[in-house]
Amino acid sequence: MVKAYAPSHITGFFEIVEDSDPAYMGSRGCGMALSSGCETEVVLGKKDLFLINGEEADALTTAYVVERLANEPVEISSSYNVPVGGGFGASGSGALSSAYALNALFSLGMSLEELGKVAHLAEVENRTGLGDVIAQMHGGIVIRREPGAPGIGVVDDIPTGDIEVGYVVLGSLSTKVILEDPRMIREINAHGRAALKELLKVPTLNNFMGLSKRFAIDTGLISEKARDAVEAVEEGGGLASMAMLGDVVFAVGNFEPLSDFGEVGVSSISCGGARLL
Amino acid sequence: MVKAYAPSHITGFFEIVEDSDPAYMGSRGCGMALSSGCETEVVLGKKDLFLINGEEADALTTAYVVERLANEPVEISSSYNVPVGGGFGASGSGALSSAYALNALFSLGMSLEELGKVAHLAEVENRTGLGDVIAQMHGGIVIRREPGAPGIGVVDDIPTGDIEVGYVVLGSLSTKVILEDPRMIREINAHGRAALKELLKVPTLNNFMGLSKRFAIDTGLISEKARDAVEAVEEGGGLASMAMLGDVVFAVGNFEPLSDFGEVGVSSISCGGARLL
Repeated sequence: MVKAYAPSHITGFFEIVEDSDPAYMGSRGCGMALSSGCETEVVLGKKDLFLINGEEADALTTAYVVERLANEPVEISSSYNVPVGGGFGASGSGALSSAYALNALFSLGMSLEELGKVAHLAEVENRTGLGDVIAQMHGGIVIRREPGAPGIGVVDDIPTGDIEVGYVVLGSLSTKVILEDPRMIREINAHGRAALKELLKVPTLNNFMGLSKRFAIDTGLISEKARDAVEAVEEGGGLASMAMLGDVVFAVGNFEPLSDFGEVGVSSISCGGARLL
Repeated sequence: MVKAYAPSHITGFFEIVEDSDPAYMGSRGCGMALSSGCETEVVLGKKDLFLINGEEADALTTAYVVERLANEPVEISSSYNVPVGGGFGASGSGALSSAYALNALFSLGMSLEELGKVAHLAEVENRTGLGDVIAQMHGGIVIRREPGAPGIGVVDDIPTGDIEVGYVVLGSLSTKVILEDPRMIREINAHGRAALKELLKVPTLNNFMGLSKRFAIDTGLISEKARDAVEAVEEGGGLASMAMLGDVVFAVGNFEPLSDFGEVGVSSISCGGARLL
């Protein structure tokens, strides 16, 4: 039995970059890798079996990784300490931690970059994510300057100390519906590109938070309730925005006002990325 | 007052890559970033002052960083929990942690890559190091595939779990004398290039350790005492080699036999790289 871990990842703003080669397809943008994430255990099994928080599931993105890396049937159990299903890059952290664990279980002798590339392809080909994996490999507050798989995409980091991020889940949001609307994609790409350009001038946490909020509003992606939650945090002196793509608000500084909107989860920024446990 | 941390870095094998542009100059090779490293405190002062483990020192590499990043005189105090002076990349961790701290103290709004680049230039221009900084920014067991400053050099990682590294300092070694001998440089480069090519085929911890040992022996850099220490570890079932460039032996697995050769230091592999504290 081997275990591996990957951080979750909250995107603040992004631009979709299409490419016929899935290794080059992905996104530019910026987000936070959170230490709360996904732990995956892998053991040999009679047939491939996927568990998410103890319950059998399809886990298509992880299944792609298993198909490419496992020499024999495996049982893969991923446990999350963030909400699964929108806003936390759960499919990416599941696929990435599975890739690291399978490399160890089968002594594949692959490098982290090679393993990350398989997880990126799994995300892009299943349309479950566009840039979480490279950020989850890296850790910290990750600027995705150029899109693509690990080894192809280019990242930089916003300097940060030990800070806490608070978040609250307000509802659900259909990623699929949003990403199939060409007008919405044009909005996302125009505002995402502008936000990245701004951020690169002065890459600080405060700028990241401010640009993320502007992106959420200008694209029209933010819900009314999420906007209320962001404003409540700002009135308390904190900074907040919406996690892309989920009806989730995340905040730094004083995030206590989030508790009026639901149960508040708290995580530190991940120091370092995914790893074997 | 601000504080920052950088891991130390033990190189197993390397190839020197000269370039007239110091951002492109550096080394290829592989080494381990250790969580035992350098903590640097920076405060405003009356004049620039450098302390290493509490004692005033010249700290030329860090002084280069201060000259480029500090708007006012500063007192910089670096405390190491590894030996300073050969084998642990102490000048790199001092310069890098200083750059991170100065960015915070003066609200410079620079990215980690921009700060890492200043520390890399400081190392290369002072001839105190050739590839420690990019590895110390990254953390883990770092393969330096292409030389140069962060953003220019290309790195990958060997997958690793929570393992401990033991080390013992046997004596001192003059880096300067070694690196001014053209015949020695040719040896280092030929064997370093071959070791990297081998490692990239199967990038595992065991291969890294074996190739490092072969490099240390084939280049003639290993001292007789260091060779005895490596053999003692191997007889006990562990793996060991020499830290480049210092008369230091490092080991994984059972490193207990090192205690016959001196006081044994122990560190985990650094998960994640340098950061603000």
